[in-house]
Amino acid sequence: MARVVVDVMLKPEILDPQGQAIVRKLPQLGFEGVAAVRQGKRFEVELDGPADEAALEQVRKIAETLLANTVIEDFEVRVL
Amino acid sequence: MARVVVDVMLKPEILDPQGQAIVRKLPQLGFEGVAAVRQGKRFEVELDGPADEAALEQVRKIAETLLANTVIEDFEVRVL
Repeated sequence: MARVVVDVMLKPEILDPQGQAIVRKLPQLGFEGVAAVRQGKRFEVELDGPADEAALEQVRKIAETLLANTVIEDFEVRVL
Repeated sequence: MARVVVDVMLKPEILDPQGQAIVRKLPQLGFEGVAAVRQGKRFEVELDGPADEAALEQVRKIAETLLANTVIEDFEVRVL
């Protein structure tokens, strides 16, 4: 069983209100020195077989179809 | 400016209904060979200064306080 990670983040040009809310809260909690926070999604995909090129290509298709909204999000696929 | 990633995932023993919903949907979309999917959160934290040990320790504290619910979630911090 191979495990593949799909990281989904908002495209840089897209506003990230959740990340901004976190950054605004940090000084009130005594945390300094954080310029920005971006929030996204992380998927761990467990495959029946090996993480060969065909399997990775399928995970990319799954990410495009189901895990990411490719209009506003970018995703990266990597073997864990 | 250094960038640190905080990956937050449900603890293994915690049920992941979102991940299960994705796995159930995959065969209907023509995708085979996926045993399980776990969904979590990914944060990119941009620091004003370098990602030295003090900065990483602070990011761990931020993760414990604000980014993860440590009762049901584990998190990992790594420099990007």
